[in-house]
Amino acid sequence: MSNEVVNYLLAYNDMKIIQRKDMFNFSLDTVLLSSFCTINKDLHKIIDFGTNNAAIPLLLSRRTDKEIIGIEIQKDAVDLAIKNVKLNHLENQITIIHNDIKDYVQTSEKFKLIVCNPPFFKVGERSHINENEYLQIARHEIKINLDEIIQSAARILDNKGRFAMVHRPDRMIEIINIMQKYDIEPKRIRFVYPKFGKESHIFLIEGMYKGNKGVKIESPLYAHEEDGSYTKEVRRMFGEKDDD
Amino acid sequence: MSNEVVNYLLAYNDMKIIQRKDMFNFSLDTVLLSSFCTINKDLHKIIDFGTNNAAIPLLLSRRTDKEIIGIEIQKDAVDLAIKNVKLNHLENQITIIHNDIKDYVQTSEKFKLIVCNPPFFKVGERSHINENEYLQIARHEIKINLDEIIQSAARILDNKGRFAMVHRPDRMIEIINIMQKYDIEPKRIRFVYPKFGKESHIFLIEGMYKGNKGVKIESPLYAHEEDGSYTKEVRRMFGEKDDD
Repeated sequence: MSNEVVNYLLAYNDMKIIQRKDMFNFSLDTVLLSSFCTINKDLHKIIDFGTNNAAIPLLLSRRTDKEIIGIEIQKDAVDLAIKNVKLNHLENQITIIHNDIKDYVQTSEKFKLIVCNPPFFKVGERSHINENEYLQIARHEIKINLDEIIQSAARILDNKGRFAMVHRPDRMIEIINIMQKYDIEPKRIRFVYPKFGKESHIFLIEGMYKGNKGVKIESPLYAHEEDGSYTKEVRRMFGEKDDD
Repeated sequence: MSNEVVNYLLAYNDMKIIQRKDMFNFSLDTVLLSSFCTINKDLHKIIDFGTNNAAIPLLLSRRTDKEIIGIEIQKDAVDLAIKNVKLNHLENQITIIHNDIKDYVQTSEKFKLIVCNPPFFKVGERSHINENEYLQIARHEIKINLDEIIQSAARILDNKGRFAMVHRPDRMIEIINIMQKYDIEPKRIRFVYPKFGKESHIFLIEGMYKGNKGVKIESPLYAHEEDGSYTKEVRRMFGEKDDD
């Protein structure tokens, strides 16, 4: 398709991603979440809710050899995601499913890790007149809202399974409330700050299904240096080696 | 009393505080909370729940001329607090009340700002065998627990009045839950980290009675430099001038 562009996914020179200018493109949020979620020996399979062009599964494949499923409601995004899996020869590890999350969880198996970079805005909030339907669905709670996402996650989480999400801090209290409503206890939170001395603009949260109470607030993560460049910690998440 | 020691309160050379070695002594938490809480033109009167030797009222008197009340259940701490108010000639601004918070709020007037550095530990948690009763009461939820503190605060908060507290991050979710239970919506949170790259060990939270939803996560505060000395920001809270 004429809109498609092949980008390098991060500083991994051998990992490419096809994106479309008129659709959601992976961002810092994607990279932060892929780096934040807990990956340990207990894992058997991971699912990414709303995978779009499969950026998160691609990035997760750098951290684990376990099977990764990406589920996506938008047909055109699914097509891109499948192309991206093939482009990187990851068909044996990553499966893309075209479905509505709410329907999928009715019959799905259970997972030990669910990740999600959800639409950040409520319907009608911060709408851009020029935003096309692809972007509206990716950014606004049109097809699914926060409550439905977390309810869906709880339904297919194994006992002590983890749910990791990236979101805006102004909705943190709401997110904690909803997670607890569905018996997912927040265990780890990490705040991301645009620069030193600024308020947090992104946060990462991981909860455990039927987990014990008690949360850890991890060290602050700064996205940018004073000059606007990414910090070393973020550049590492983008795949930069120490000697780059 | 032979146990009494006169300390300078922070780097304010003209502010002194009498402390007893066998009782609670003011700490970084005290200073952080006194510096964090919102003081604005709307204020008419402030109350400090569990004021102990009045360190918080003394520190707040550096930020405002409004009336400050300190309430304390331990008689010996009340005696110290009153001495400290007199020692600093603040009798016209600071009033110390010897009472149980739970009783006091039954008949009290309303406040626009309540601050509290509460006991951090549940009864039986992290008990030290050698800890005397003074310290046990100051550090453990013996006379009052978190739910009772926040319920008491909500009872005497004006509409849109603020409640500011310092606590341990592992109890953050519980604190948010209890604040919301009593209709105090968290509005500002600031995490304090012992050093760069470490998990948060202290956090500050301010909620608003009948406030709207939406919280701000303020910039991280580091307590110590790599060499263990206080950071510049903390030294400023301790009263250090820029040209000190």
